[in-house]
Amino acid sequence: METKLISQAVIGRLPRYFRYLGDLKDAGVERISSQELSEIMKVTASQIRQDFNNFGGFGQQGYGYNVEYLYKEIGKILGMDQVHNLVIIGAGNLGSALANYMNFERRGFIFRGMFDKNPDLIGKEVRGIRILPMEELERFVREKDIDIAVLTIPKAGAVEVAERLVQNGIRAIWNFAHVDLNVPKGIQVENVHLSDSLMKLSYKINRYMQENGSTAGSAGERKA
Amino acid sequence: METKLISQAVIGRLPRYFRYLGDLKDAGVERISSQELSEIMKVTASQIRQDFNNFGGFGQQGYGYNVEYLYKEIGKILGMDQVHNLVIIGAGNLGSALANYMNFERRGFIFRGMFDKNPDLIGKEVRGIRILPMEELERFVREKDIDIAVLTIPKAGAVEVAERLVQNGIRAIWNFAHVDLNVPKGIQVENVHLSDSLMKLSYKINRYMQENGSTAGSAGERKA
Repeated sequence: METKLISQAVIGRLPRYFRYLGDLKDAGVERISSQELSEIMKVTASQIRQDFNNFGGFGQQGYGYNVEYLYKEIGKILGMDQVHNLVIIGAGNLGSALANYMNFERRGFIFRGMFDKNPDLIGKEVRGIRILPMEELERFVREKDIDIAVLTIPKAGAVEVAERLVQNGIRAIWNFAHVDLNVPKGIQVENVHLSDSLMKLSYKINRYMQENGSTAGSAGERKA
Repeated sequence: METKLISQAVIGRLPRYFRYLGDLKDAGVERISSQELSEIMKVTASQIRQDFNNFGGFGQQGYGYNVEYLYKEIGKILGMDQVHNLVIIGAGNLGSALANYMNFERRGFIFRGMFDKNPDLIGKEVRGIRILPMEELERFVREKDIDIAVLTIPKAGAVEVAERLVQNGIRAIWNFAHVDLNVPKGIQVENVHLSDSLMKLSYKINRYMQENGSTAGSAGERKA
Protein backbone atom coordinates (compact mmCIF):
# COMPACT_ATOMS: atom_id res chain seq x y z
CA MET A 1 0.00 0.00 0.00
CA GLU A 2 1.28 3.47 -0.84
CA THR A 3 1.77 5.74 2.13
CA LYS A 4 0.43 9.27 1.92
CA LEU A 5 0.05 11.88 4.58
CA ILE A 6 -2.98 11.09 6.70
CA SER A 7 -4.32 13.54 9.22
CA GLN A 8 -4.17 12.87 12.95
CA ALA A 9 -7.96 13.16 13.04
CA VAL A 10 -8.40 10.29 10.59
CA ILE A 11 -5.84 8.17 12.43
CA GLY A 12 -7.64 8.90 15.67
CA ARG A 13 -10.85 7.51 14.17
CA LEU A 14 -9.37 4.30 12.75
CA PRO A 15 -9.37 2.29 16.01
CA ARG A 16 -13.04 3.08 16.42
CA TYR A 17 -13.85 1.82 12.92
CA PHE A 18 -11.80 -1.26 13.69
CA ARG A 19 -13.72 -1.85 16.91
CA TYR A 20 -17.14 -1.53 15.25
CA LEU A 21 -16.17 -3.65 12.27
CA GLY A 22 -14.85 -6.32 14.63
CA ASP A 23 -18.22 -6.36 16.41
CA LEU A 24 -20.07 -6.60 13.09
CA LYS A 25 -17.80 -9.40 11.92
CA ASP A 26 -18.32 -11.28 15.21
CA ALA A 27 -22.07 -10.82 14.76
CA GLY A 28 -21.85 -12.49 11.35
CA VAL A 29 -22.54 -9.35 9.26
CA GLU A 30 -20.95 -9.76 5.82
CA ARG A 31 -21.49 -6.41 4.20
CA ILE A 32 -22.61 -2.96 5.20
CA SER A 33 -23.32 0.33 3.43
CA SER A 34 -21.69 3.57 4.56
CA GLN A 35 -25.24 4.68 5.46
CA GLU A 36 -25.76 1.74 7.82
CA LEU A 37 -22.30 2.09 9.32
CA SER A 38 -23.04 5.79 9.76
CA GLU A 39 -26.15 5.04 11.80
CA ILE A 40 -24.40 2.57 14.08
CA MET A 41 -21.36 4.74 14.63
CA LYS A 42 -23.14 8.09 14.75
CA VAL A 43 -20.87 9.79 12.26
CA THR A 44 -21.99 10.98 8.82
CA ALA A 45 -21.79 8.62 5.86
CA SER A 46 -19.79 11.25 4.00
CA GLN A 47 -17.26 11.33 6.84
CA ILE A 48 -16.91 7.56 6.58
CA ARG A 49 -16.43 7.68 2.80
CA GLN A 50 -13.88 10.48 3.13
CA ASP A 51 -11.96 8.65 5.83
CA PHE A 52 -11.84 5.43 3.82
CA ASN A 53 -10.80 7.33 0.68
CA ASN A 54 -7.53 8.09 2.46
CA PHE A 55 -6.74 4.43 2.04
CA GLY A 56 -8.08 3.93 -1.44
CA GLY A 57 -11.75 3.50 -0.69
CA PHE A 58 -12.48 -0.17 0.15
CA GLY A 59 -16.02 0.00 -1.21
CA GLN A 60 -17.81 -1.08 -4.33
CA GLN A 61 -20.51 1.10 -5.83
CA GLY A 62 -23.94 -0.23 -4.90
CA TYR A 63 -22.55 -3.08 -2.83
CA GLY A 64 -21.28 -1.32 0.26
CA TYR A 65 -18.33 -2.59 2.21
CA ASN A 66 -17.30 -6.17 2.75
CA VAL A 67 -17.04 -6.22 6.55
CA GLU A 68 -14.32 -8.83 6.87
CA TYR A 69 -12.17 -7.28 4.14
CA LEU A 70 -12.56 -3.79 5.59
CA TYR A 71 -11.79 -5.05 9.10
CA LYS A 72 -8.66 -6.75 7.84
CA GLU A 73 -7.47 -3.79 5.80
CA ILE A 74 -7.96 -1.28 8.62
CA GLY A 75 -6.25 -3.77 10.91
CA LYS A 76 -3.25 -3.81 8.57
CA ILE A 77 -3.10 -0.01 8.51
CA LEU A 78 -3.13 -0.09 12.31
CA GLY A 79 -0.31 -2.63 12.31
CA MET A 80 -2.54 -5.34 13.81
CA ASP A 81 -0.84 -7.88 11.53
CA GLN A 82 2.45 -7.28 13.33
CA VAL A 83 3.67 -8.82 16.56
CA HIS A 84 5.16 -6.62 19.28
CA ASN A 85 6.98 -7.61 22.44
CA LEU A 86 5.88 -5.54 25.38
CA VAL A 87 7.07 -4.92 28.93
CA ILE A 88 5.16 -3.19 31.69
CA ILE A 89 7.10 -0.98 34.06
CA GLY A 90 5.24 -0.47 37.31
CA ALA A 91 3.52 -3.52 38.81
CA GLY A 92 0.86 -1.66 40.78
CA ASN A 93 -2.86 -1.90 40.15
CA LEU A 94 -2.75 -0.11 36.83
CA GLY A 95 0.16 -2.18 35.50
CA SER A 96 -1.59 -5.35 36.67
CA ALA A 97 -4.85 -4.28 35.06
CA LEU A 98 -3.08 -3.83 31.73
CA ALA A 99 -1.19 -7.11 32.09
CA ASN A 100 -4.48 -8.93 32.62
CA TYR A 101 -6.11 -7.37 29.63
CA MET A 102 -6.14 -10.39 27.34
CA ASN A 103 -7.29 -8.56 24.24
CA PHE A 104 -3.86 -7.06 23.79
CA GLU A 105 -2.45 -10.44 22.86
CA ARG A 106 -5.20 -11.09 20.37
CA ARG A 107 -4.01 -7.93 18.67
CA GLY A 108 -0.37 -8.90 18.54
CA PHE A 109 0.92 -7.24 21.70
CA ILE A 110 2.74 -9.98 23.60
CA PHE A 111 3.29 -9.36 27.30
CA ARG A 112 6.88 -10.46 27.99
CA GLY A 113 8.04 -8.84 31.20
CA MET A 114 7.11 -6.72 34.18
CA PHE A 115 9.33 -4.54 36.34
CA ASP A 116 9.04 -2.70 39.62
CA LYS A 117 11.38 -1.13 42.13
CA ASN A 118 9.27 -2.21 45.11
CA PRO A 119 11.02 -5.19 46.81
CA ASP A 120 7.64 -6.45 48.06
CA LEU A 121 6.47 -6.96 44.49
CA ILE A 122 9.63 -8.37 42.95
CA GLY A 123 9.39 -12.13 42.44
CA LYS A 124 5.58 -12.16 42.47
CA GLU A 125 3.78 -13.24 39.32
CA VAL A 126 1.24 -11.48 37.17
CA ARG A 127 -0.32 -13.72 34.54
CA GLY A 128 2.57 -16.12 34.77
CA ILE A 129 5.20 -13.39 34.35
CA ARG A 130 7.59 -12.83 37.28
CA ILE A 131 8.07 -9.23 38.36
CA LEU A 132 11.74 -8.29 37.97
CA PRO A 133 13.78 -5.56 39.65
CA MET A 134 14.50 -2.38 37.71
CA GLU A 135 18.22 -3.25 37.56
CA GLU A 136 17.43 -5.99 35.05
CA LEU A 137 15.50 -3.72 32.69
CA GLU A 138 18.26 -2.85 30.20
CA ARG A 139 19.50 -6.39 29.70
CA PHE A 140 15.97 -7.76 29.39
CA VAL A 141 14.88 -5.18 26.84
CA ARG A 142 17.92 -5.88 24.66
CA GLU A 143 17.94 -9.66 24.96
CA LYS A 144 14.22 -10.21 24.50
CA ASP A 145 13.85 -7.75 21.62
CA ILE A 146 11.26 -5.70 23.45
CA ASP A 147 9.84 -2.96 21.27
CA ILE A 148 7.05 -1.46 23.39
CA ALA A 149 7.27 -0.33 27.02
CA VAL A 150 4.21 0.52 29.06
CA LEU A 151 4.97 3.08 31.76
CA THR A 152 2.67 2.83 34.77
CA ILE A 153 5.00 4.45 37.29
CA PRO A 154 4.75 7.80 39.05
CA LYS A 155 5.77 10.96 37.26
CA ALA A 156 9.01 11.31 39.25
CA GLY A 157 10.82 8.32 37.76
CA ALA A 158 9.23 8.29 34.31
CA VAL A 159 11.61 10.59 32.44
CA GLU A 160 14.71 8.71 33.57
CA VAL A 161 13.19 5.29 32.84
CA ALA A 162 12.13 6.47 29.38
CA GLU A 163 15.73 7.48 28.66
CA ARG A 164 17.02 4.08 29.74
CA LEU A 165 14.47 2.39 27.50
CA VAL A 166 15.34 4.50 24.49
CA GLN A 167 19.06 3.81 24.97
CA ASN A 168 18.31 0.11 24.88
CA GLY A 169 16.40 0.04 21.65
CA ILE A 170 12.76 0.44 22.57
CA ARG A 171 10.61 1.71 19.67
CA ALA A 172 7.53 2.94 21.46
CA ILE A 173 6.25 3.99 24.86
CA TRP A 174 2.67 3.74 26.03
CA ASN A 175 2.84 6.36 28.74
CA PHE A 176 0.49 6.45 31.74
CA ALA A 177 2.84 8.58 33.86
CA HIS A 178 1.56 12.11 34.39
CA VAL A 179 4.37 13.75 32.53
CA ASP A 180 5.11 14.47 28.89
CA LEU A 181 8.16 12.51 27.80
CA ASN A 182 10.84 14.07 25.67
CA VAL A 183 12.09 11.31 23.37
CA PRO A 184 14.15 11.33 20.16
CA LYS A 185 12.41 11.40 16.78
CA GLY A 186 11.61 7.88 15.73
CA ILE A 187 10.44 6.79 19.18
CA GLN A 188 6.66 6.68 19.22
CA VAL A 189 4.77 7.82 22.30
CA GLU A 190 1.10 7.52 23.08
CA ASN A 191 0.01 9.24 26.29
CA VAL A 192 -2.89 8.23 28.48
CA HIS A 193 -3.13 11.10 30.94
CA LEU A 194 -5.97 9.95 33.17
CA SER A 195 -6.15 13.14 35.20
CA ASP A 196 -6.46 15.18 31.99
CA SER A 197 -9.35 12.99 30.97
CA LEU A 198 -11.11 13.42 34.32
CA MET A 199 -10.61 17.19 34.10
CA LYS A 200 -12.25 17.22 30.69
CA LEU A 201 -15.21 15.43 32.20
CA SER A 202 -15.29 17.96 35.02
CA TYR A 203 -15.20 20.79 32.47
CA LYS A 204 -18.18 19.33 30.61
CA ILE A 205 -20.22 19.00 33.81
CA ASN A 206 -19.36 22.54 34.88
CA ARG A 207 -20.12 23.96 31.45
CA TYR A 208 -23.45 22.16 31.22
CA MET A 209 -24.51 23.41 34.65
CA GLN A 210 -23.58 26.98 33.76
CA GLU A 211 -25.39 26.91 30.44
CA ASN A 212 -28.49 25.26 31.81
CA GLY A 213 -28.68 27.19 35.05
CA SER A 214 -28.78 23.86 36.80
CA THR A 215 -27.82 23.80 40.43
CA ALA A 216 -24.94 21.61 41.33
CA GLY A 217 -26.89 18.81 42.99
CA SER A 218 -24.32 17.06 45.09
CA ALA A 219 -21.61 19.25 43.65
CA GLY A 220 -20.82 22.37 45.61
CA GLU A 221 -18.16 25.03 45.99
CA ARG A 222 -15.00 23.63 47.45
CA LYS A 223 -13.92 24.83 50.81
CA ALA A 224 -10.22 24.31 50.08
CA MET B 1 -17.49 34.55 33.71
CA GLU B 2 -19.32 34.81 30.39
CA THR B 3 -19.62 31.57 28.51
CA LYS B 4 -18.84 31.58 24.84
CA LEU B 5 -18.38 28.71 22.46
CA ILE B 6 -14.95 27.22 22.96
CA SER B 7 -13.57 24.65 20.57
CA GLN B 8 -12.98 21.06 21.63
CA ALA B 9 -9.33 21.51 20.71
CA VAL B 10 -8.90 24.34 23.22
CA ILE B 11 -10.75 22.40 25.91
CA GLY B 12 -8.57 19.40 25.21
CA ARG B 13 -5.49 21.53 25.90
CA LEU B 14 -6.70 23.11 29.15
CA PRO B 15 -5.85 20.16 31.44
CA ARG B 16 -2.31 20.20 30.09
CA TYR B 17 -1.94 23.92 30.86
CA PHE B 18 -3.35 23.23 34.30
CA ARG B 19 -0.83 20.43 34.86
CA TYR B 20 2.16 22.54 33.81
CA LEU B 21 1.03 25.58 35.77
CA GLY B 22 0.56 23.40 38.86
CA ASP B 23 4.15 22.17 38.50
CA LEU B 24 5.42 25.74 38.09
CA LYS B 25 3.44 26.87 41.11
CA ASP B 26 4.78 23.97 43.19
CA ALA B 27 8.29 24.92 42.07
CA GLY B 28 7.74 28.44 43.40
CA VAL B 29 7.58 30.21 40.02
CA GLU B 30 5.52 33.39 40.37
CA ARG B 31 5.26 34.63 36.83
CA ILE B 32 6.00 33.43 33.35
CA SER B 33 5.91 34.85 29.84
CA SER B 34 4.05 33.10 27.04
CA GLN B 35 7.48 32.63 25.45
CA GLU B 36 8.84 30.75 28.47
CA LEU B 37 5.66 28.71 28.83
CA SER B 38 5.91 27.95 25.12
CA GLU B 39 9.40 26.51 25.53
CA ILE B 40 8.44 24.30 28.47
CA MET B 41 5.24 23.04 26.90
CA LYS B 42 6.51 22.80 23.34
CA VAL B 43 3.62 24.67 21.79
CA THR B 44 3.96 28.07 20.10
CA ALA B 45 3.61 31.24 22.18
CA SER B 46 0.96 32.43 19.75
CA GLN B 47 -1.03 29.25 20.37
CA ILE B 48 -0.88 29.91 24.10
CA ARG B 49 -2.01 33.52 23.71
CA GLN B 50 -4.84 32.47 21.40
CA ASP B 51 -5.98 29.74 23.78
CA PHE B 52 -6.00 32.09 26.77
CA ASN B 53 -7.81 34.78 24.78
CA ASN B 54 -10.80 32.45 24.75
CA PHE B 55 -11.11 33.19 28.44
CA GLY B 56 -10.32 36.88 28.38
CA GLY B 57 -6.54 36.76 28.24
CA PHE B 58 -5.16 36.47 31.80
CA GLY B 59 -1.95 38.34 30.93
CA GLN B 60 -0.56 41.81 31.40
CA GLN B 61 1.51 43.38 28.65
CA GLY B 62 5.21 43.17 29.49
CA TYR B 63 4.59 41.28 32.72
CA GLY B 64 3.60 37.87 31.50
CA TYR B 65 1.25 35.65 33.42
CA ASN B 66 0.90 35.40 37.16
CA VAL B 67 1.28 31.63 37.61
CA GLU B 68 -0.92 31.23 40.67
CA TYR B 69 -3.72 33.38 39.26
CA LEU B 70 -3.61 31.60 35.90
CA TYR B 71 -3.58 28.19 37.59
CA LYS B 72 -6.58 29.14 39.67
CA GLU B 73 -8.55 30.60 36.75
CA ILE B 74 -7.95 27.61 34.48
CA GLY B 75 -8.85 25.42 37.43
CA LYS B 76 -12.17 27.25 37.73
CA ILE B 77 -12.88 26.81 34.03
CA LEU B 78 -12.20 23.10 34.46
CA GLY B 79 -14.56 22.99 37.42
CA MET B 80 -11.75 22.20 39.88
CA ASP B 81 -13.39 24.48 42.44
CA GLN B 82 -16.38 22.12 42.56
CA VAL B 83 -16.81 18.96 44.59
CA HIS B 84 -18.10 15.80 42.94
CA ASN B 85 -19.18 12.53 44.53
CA LEU B 86 -17.91 9.57 42.61
CA VAL B 87 -18.56 5.82 42.54
CA ILE B 88 -16.49 3.21 40.78
CA ILE B 89 -18.31 0.31 39.16
CA GLY B 90 -16.01 -2.64 38.66
CA ALA B 91 -13.63 -3.47 41.52
CA GLY B 92 -10.99 -5.22 39.44
CA ASN B 93 -7.43 -4.02 38.97
CA LEU B 94 -8.38 -0.99 36.92
CA GLY B 95 -11.13 0.12 39.31
CA SER B 96 -8.76 -0.36 42.24
CA ALA B 97 -6.01 1.58 40.47
CA LEU B 98 -8.38 4.52 40.01
CA ALA B 99 -9.67 4.28 43.60
CA ASN B 100 -6.12 4.50 44.87
CA TYR B 101 -5.27 7.46 42.75
CA MET B 102 -5.15 10.10 45.51
CA ASN B 103 -4.83 13.10 43.23
CA PHE B 104 -8.48 12.83 42.31
CA GLU B 105 -9.52 13.95 45.78
CA ARG B 106 -7.16 16.90 45.70
CA ARG B 107 -9.09 17.97 42.62
CA GLY B 108 -12.51 17.66 44.17
CA PHE B 109 -13.48 14.15 43.08
CA ILE B 110 -14.50 12.34 46.25
CA PHE B 111 -14.50 8.56 46.10
CA ARG B 112 -17.71 7.46 47.86
CA GLY B 113 -18.52 3.93 46.77
CA MET B 114 -17.43 0.91 44.83
CA PHE B 115 -19.55 -1.83 43.25
CA ASP B 116 -18.99 -5.22 41.73
CA LYS B 117 -21.05 -8.25 40.83
CA ASN B 118 -18.31 -10.71 41.81
CA PRO B 119 -19.28 -12.27 45.21
CA ASP B 120 -15.57 -12.80 45.99
CA LEU B 121 -14.98 -9.06 45.94
CA ILE B 122 -18.12 -7.87 47.72
CA GLY B 123 -17.39 -6.85 51.31
CA LYS B 124 -13.69 -6.29 50.70
CA GLU B 125 -12.31 -2.80 51.14
CA VAL B 126 -10.48 -0.52 48.76
CA ARG B 127 -9.06 2.58 50.45
CA GLY B 128 -11.49 2.21 53.32
CA ILE B 129 -14.52 1.86 51.05
CA ARG B 130 -16.43 -1.44 51.18
CA ILE B 131 -17.26 -3.03 47.85
CA LEU B 132 -21.03 -3.33 47.51
CA PRO B 133 -23.16 -5.63 45.33
CA MET B 134 -24.67 -4.22 42.15
CA GLU B 135 -28.18 -4.55 43.62
CA GLU B 136 -27.43 -1.63 45.94
CA LEU B 137 -26.30 0.70 43.16
CA GLU B 138 -29.54 2.60 42.53
CA ARG B 139 -30.30 3.36 46.16
CA PHE B 140 -26.71 4.37 46.88
CA VAL B 141 -26.47 6.72 43.91
CA ARG B 142 -29.69 8.48 44.90
CA GLU B 143 -29.09 8.66 48.65
CA LYS B 144 -25.46 9.74 48.51
CA ASP B 145 -25.99 12.31 45.75
CA ILE B 146 -23.47 10.64 43.47
CA ASP B 147 -22.87 12.66 40.34
CA ILE B 148 -20.02 10.83 38.61
CA ALA B 149 -19.78 7.11 37.89
CA VAL B 150 -16.58 5.47 36.72
CA LEU B 151 -17.23 2.39 34.61
CA THR B 152 -14.46 -0.18 34.74
CA ILE B 153 -16.53 -3.20 33.79
CA PRO B 154 -16.48 -5.31 30.63
CA LYS B 155 -18.27 -4.10 27.56
CA ALA B 156 -21.13 -6.59 27.94
CA GLY B 157 -22.68 -5.02 31.05
CA ALA B 158 -21.74 -1.41 30.46
CA VAL B 159 -24.72 -0.23 28.42
CA GLU B 160 -27.27 -1.59 30.91
CA VAL B 161 -25.40 -0.21 33.92
CA ALA B 162 -25.13 3.20 32.26
CA GLU B 163 -28.91 3.22 31.80
CA ARG B 164 -29.47 2.39 35.48
CA LEU B 165 -27.12 5.19 36.47
CA VAL B 166 -28.82 7.74 34.26
CA GLN B 167 -32.23 6.79 35.62
CA ASN B 168 -30.96 7.45 39.12
CA GLY B 169 -29.65 10.92 38.55
CA ILE B 170 -26.01 10.52 37.63
CA ARG B 171 -24.60 13.53 35.73
CA ALA B 172 -21.49 12.11 34.18
CA ILE B 173 -19.80 8.84 33.25
CA TRP B 174 -16.08 8.27 33.01
CA ASN B 175 -16.19 5.27 30.73
CA PHE B 176 -13.41 2.70 30.54
CA ALA B 177 -15.65 -0.01 29.06
CA HIS B 178 -14.84 -0.76 25.43
CA VAL B 179 -18.13 0.43 24.09
CA ASP B 180 -19.59 3.81 23.17
CA LEU B 181 -22.46 4.63 25.51
CA ASN B 182 -25.66 6.13 24.22
CA VAL B 183 -26.86 8.52 26.92
CA PRO B 184 -29.41 11.34 26.93
CA LYS B 185 -28.30 14.91 26.23
CA GLY B 186 -27.19 16.49 29.46
CA ILE B 187 -25.30 13.43 30.67
CA GLN B 188 -21.59 13.98 30.13
CA VAL B 189 -19.39 11.11 29.01
CA GLU B 190 -15.64 10.95 28.75
CA ASN B 191 -14.29 7.76 27.20
CA VAL B 192 -10.94 6.18 27.91
CA HIS B 193 -10.72 3.46 25.28
CA LEU B 194 -7.41 1.86 26.15
CA SER B 195 -7.37 -0.49 23.19
CA ASP B 196 -7.94 2.44 20.81
CA SER B 197 -4.95 4.15 22.37
CA LEU B 198 -2.75 1.09 21.99
CA MET B 199 -3.85 0.77 18.35
CA LYS B 200 -2.83 4.35 17.70
CA LEU B 201 0.59 3.53 19.10
CA SER B 202 0.76 0.47 16.88
CA TYR B 203 -0.20 2.61 13.88
CA LYS B 204 2.61 5.05 14.62
CA ILE B 205 5.20 2.26 14.89
CA ASN B 206 3.98 0.66 11.68
CA ARG B 207 3.95 3.95 9.82
CA TYR B 208 7.41 4.89 11.00
CA MET B 209 8.83 1.55 9.94
CA GLN B 210 7.23 1.81 6.49
CA GLU B 211 8.46 5.34 5.94
CA ASN B 212 11.96 4.66 7.16
CA GLY B 213 12.40 1.29 5.53
CA SER B 214 13.29 -0.04 8.95
CA THR B 215 12.95 -3.73 9.54
CA ALA B 216 10.68 -4.74 12.30
CA GLY B 217 13.31 -5.79 14.83
CA SER B 218 11.41 -8.02 17.17
CA ALA B 219 8.21 -7.25 15.35
CA GLY B 220 7.25 -9.66 12.65
CA GLU B 221 4.34 -10.77 10.53
CA ARG B 222 1.71 -12.52 12.56
CA LYS B 223 1.02 -16.10 11.85
CA ALA B 224 -2.61 -15.82 12.92
